[in-house]
Amino acid sequence: MKRAVVLLSGGLDSTTTLAICRADGFESYALSFRYGQRHECELVAARKIAKSLGAKEHRIARIDLRVFAGSALTAELEVPKKRSATEMASSIPVTYVPARNTIFLSYALAWTEVLGATDIFIGANAVDYSGYPDCRPEFIRAFGQLANLATRAGVEGARFAIHAPLLTLSKAAIIQRGFSLGVDYALTHSCYDPTSDGLSCGACDSCQLRLKGFREAGLTDPIVYAP
Amino acid sequence: MKRAVVLLSGGLDSTTTLAICRADGFESYALSFRYGQRHECELVAARKIAKSLGAKEHRIARIDLRVFAGSALTAELEVPKKRSATEMASSIPVTYVPARNTIFLSYALAWTEVLGATDIFIGANAVDYSGYPDCRPEFIRAFGQLANLATRAGVEGARFAIHAPLLTLSKAAIIQRGFSLGVDYALTHSCYDPTSDGLSCGACDSCQLRLKGFREAGLTDPIVYAP
Repeated sequence: MKRAVVLLSGGLDSTTTLAICRADGFESYALSFRYGQRHECELVAARKIAKSLGAKEHRIARIDLRVFAGSALTAELEVPKKRSATEMASSIPVTYVPARNTIFLSYALAWTEVLGATDIFIGANAVDYSGYPDCRPEFIRAFGQLANLATRAGVEGARFAIHAPLLTLSKAAIIQRGFSLGVDYALTHSCYDPTSDGLSCGACDSCQLRLKGFREAGLTDPIVYAP
Repeated sequence: MKRAVVLLSGGLDSTTTLAICRADGFESYALSFRYGQRHECELVAARKIAKSLGAKEHRIARIDLRVFAGSALTAELEVPKKRSATEMASSIPVTYVPARNTIFLSYALAWTEVLGATDIFIGANAVDYSGYPDCRPEFIRAFGQLANLATRAGVEGARFAIHAPLLTLSKAAIIQRGFSLGVDYALTHSCYDPTSDGLSCGACDSCQLRLKGFREAGLTDPIVYAP
């Protein structure tokens, strides 16, 4: 069975990506990061999801992004709430973490090489993507090229593939795809600003995109939102 | 004054690179990593060097490479000793850390973007380079292209430059360049396998390349080697 490393945040997109990786016939190795998130909900979710979707291993790498500061997800900035779709689409949000996907993919590449594998899955999405530059197709392609040059395996002829199966799917299409693969979305966590009990706020960009996706897919979001 | 981030391991190459960065007129921001090295000598050296070469800031990011295992520099493997130049040139050594420079440059990119800068300096060298794939010119170029695609700054038109001023220099030429810039090589640490007192072994690939470099430069290595 061919091995693949899957970046798993515990959110809706990466969970669907893990299900697709398995459906594509790979033995999956899930990789999450403890990077100074303000809340642990994501990692708790990731652990349950990796188990429920049959990942062969799940590792959590502790990395240090706070050392550079500069993002609402890792610093003490205000998470924007109830922004319109136009506002979300028109700018890169303050929740942008500099070079995050580059750092995450670099770690994935290291583990992939150690495993003797050449496939990496990432749930990047260029449609409802909240304006993150490192979720664009040209970024994903460029990282694949870099991987071939960056590694011993690449020098020896291996060709790395960065799979981003959600890249051009709407949130609704992602959710429908996941449902067809048996994903339990009750396990996932999307909110940027949950309550201390881990309930989702329903108002940040991530919650809004998620709720809109379920509505458009004609399905009910199984998670509980704060009153 | 234009800012630049400089990757600083505390070795001879990165120290010379920091001196070149300063001589090129940049305000330098030195970045080191605590990545599960077996010894702290490198970081102790980096701190002294950053101070001596006038870095505006020096940050040490704690990262987790041991999570993937697989290298003599981070695991409990034997460091090869007294290899001939032919042996060193003919294969990628066990001291190779998967995707290390990709991970280091990704962090440098994050800090560079936070600083509002576009210049990154790395002491990669393709001559006496011990066979590391991520020290080759094509890798450095590919990372520069990735940086433009990976960042908000890149989307907004910034063009990142990855400076690798040592890329085609012999070790002797690097040392001569550093001397001409006033580098105090007594502060640097190169050994892969120092004694518990921090003395260099003189026999690992890194020590051998260093000693040969000083010989060919007609200079005396100011550090102390184990008897």
